[in-house]
Amino acid sequence: MNTARIDRVLENMERAGLEQIIVTSTASVYYLTGYWVEPMERMLALYLRRGAAPVLFGNELFALQPQEGLELVLHTDSDDPTAQLCAALAPGALGVDKFWPSKFLMSLLTARPDVRPVPGSAPVDDARTCKDADEIAALRAASRINDQVVTAAIAALKEGVREDEMAALVEQLFRDHGGERSSEGQLVCFGPNGADPHHGPNGTRLKAGDSVVLDLFNPIGRYWCDMTRTVFFRSVSDEGRRVYETVRAANAAAEAMIRPGVLLCDVDRAARSVIEDAGYGPYFTHRLGHGCGLECHEPPDNSPVSMAPLRPGMVFSVEPGIYLPGKLGVRIEDLVLVTEDGCEVLNHAGKELQIV
Amino acid sequence: MNTARIDRVLENMERAGLEQIIVTSTASVYYLTGYWVEPMERMLALYLRRGAAPVLFGNELFALQPQEGLELVLHTDSDDPTAQLCAALAPGALGVDKFWPSKFLMSLLTARPDVRPVPGSAPVDDARTCKDADEIAALRAASRINDQVVTAAIAALKEGVREDEMAALVEQLFRDHGGERSSEGQLVCFGPNGADPHHGPNGTRLKAGDSVVLDLFNPIGRYWCDMTRTVFFRSVSDEGRRVYETVRAANAAAEAMIRPGVLLCDVDRAARSVIEDAGYGPYFTHRLGHGCGLECHEPPDNSPVSMAPLRPGMVFSVEPGIYLPGKLGVRIEDLVLVTEDGCEVLNHAGKELQIV
Repeated sequence: MNTARIDRVLENMERAGLEQIIVTSTASVYYLTGYWVEPMERMLALYLRRGAAPVLFGNELFALQPQEGLELVLHTDSDDPTAQLCAALAPGALGVDKFWPSKFLMSLLTARPDVRPVPGSAPVDDARTCKDADEIAALRAASRINDQVVTAAIAALKEGVREDEMAALVEQLFRDHGGERSSEGQLVCFGPNGADPHHGPNGTRLKAGDSVVLDLFNPIGRYWCDMTRTVFFRSVSDEGRRVYETVRAANAAAEAMIRPGVLLCDVDRAARSVIEDAGYGPYFTHRLGHGCGLECHEPPDNSPVSMAPLRPGMVFSVEPGIYLPGKLGVRIEDLVLVTEDGCEVLNHAGKELQIV
Repeated sequence: MNTARIDRVLENMERAGLEQIIVTSTASVYYLTGYWVEPMERMLALYLRRGAAPVLFGNELFALQPQEGLELVLHTDSDDPTAQLCAALAPGALGVDKFWPSKFLMSLLTARPDVRPVPGSAPVDDARTCKDADEIAALRAASRINDQVVTAAIAALKEGVREDEMAALVEQLFRDHGGERSSEGQLVCFGPNGADPHHGPNGTRLKAGDSVVLDLFNPIGRYWCDMTRTVFFRSVSDEGRRVYETVRAANAAAEAMIRPGVLLCDVDRAARSVIEDAGYGPYFTHRLGHGCGLECHEPPDNSPVSMAPLRPGMVFSVEPGIYLPGKLGVRIEDLVLVTEDGCEVLNHAGKELQIV
């Protein structure tokens, strides 16, 4: 159990006027307790209440080991999974984690009509947004491995290789470097396929003149890395070069202004302005980035509507892109850490235009 | 849109006294509409109401294409995702899909206090439990590929190979046969590791005398296959042989009694009795099986508490196992289809004791 993190969450609850919350997501429960549980259809809930010790409700199949300061309340597959939790709740507002399956919430509504569920993820999300020293070390290490993986992947590009072969190679590289098996596939896009930011790798074969988007992400020691590099195979068109240098300038402009107090939307704006000024505004079709930690996509949101100011310890992606349908795509993505007076870019793989 | 399936769900709603439901799971929405959407943090809901046409609410980023007879109502990331749905609901009971994220349900509770959410997955789950002709064809084809994959995997076993290498090979074999990339890893367990039914593959190396559990499952054309074979490497102990033949007899006893009208719990009982009679009762630690279709684990539950009678079209696993801590594990699993007068075993890979 991480009491410093739990204390931060309890403070956030106090500020939000929440007496009690249940934390149910795998990553948030791990963040606070050290237990990694994927409950699937079963129930897991960490109950936090101001002035009381935390209590973890879970199925005995999760094989949770006792630890000091944390009460464990276990149920079996034959029990009503929410019964013990319902018995423990105080009347009134209850903060509920955003992805808790509705079946549990409906059961709670029936058993405890005096409890009023309200959105309750914010106190934990806010704590998780600013990484502590252990988390920063894990994120730095994961991104260092991503630097090695992308370098090896670029070196393996050859005429006729398939996108899905490259994706499988990248997965193998992550495993060779100690990464966990990821539930997510890697993004490898050749030529016009790169114009779809979420194109999944298929049997497309690499040919001269293609842009190659490598968006590589994997958990390593539970923390995710996430980086994109775009290179050109054998040659680059004038348009490809123009697009590349525009995206590179957008990435640099955003990273240059990152420091505590700056608004996330202004970071997005800095990158977006570079792309708009070059005439490619309509072809940058997504937000600039997303927080990254125990989940690949987590708060903070780095988008035109993110009014939150940057705080030290935030880690998020800076990933401007330009997508020209039928032609090519270019995206350059780093993870960055907000420091006391600026920003540390966690990725070190080169960003100069590369023709391989 | 599959009107026959939707009609079945509407009939189930009538029987259950439900006027309206929302269907939100990826697999269930696909089953009824043909759209495969993984909404992640965004909202997706198919609204079914007796006497009205179905309406699908989703984010415009899902890129849904119009189809006849189905109204599409789209929102953007800047909208309140539940607003349009809330405006369409009738007052009173609303069946809600079991895994709908609580954040949406809480928003609905606030906007429509006159709507009473109740568990609402059963009408679709029940329809999905009995596969139609298209689904049976897809499941047969997927299991045929699994037969080939397990045969190739067994042929690849060699002294010193690592569990995780074998798991990666199996994934590659599935892809080579047209399978989708799976979010789930394969289960490959050598020797004592097989005594944990959910052991994840690691760096353990194969050595003479090991039992080898290969539990292989993958979606192919959206439908899952799922089969387990256990073989022995180089030699088998007397105990290993006794355990193997017991599990094989349990698998056969269960499959021999499958026909419409038999209770699922009695199928579980048939296998469990064989294992108990051989003195291994305490070492068969899980249910006999689970339904399989668009999800690897779906209804029906094949366990000691499943009082439902078998119906033609049901597809589920029959997977007895014996797990001896510190020694070995043996599991033999087939997918079976309930026919009009018996059962069709979808897997054809051999079940005789194999020493490889």
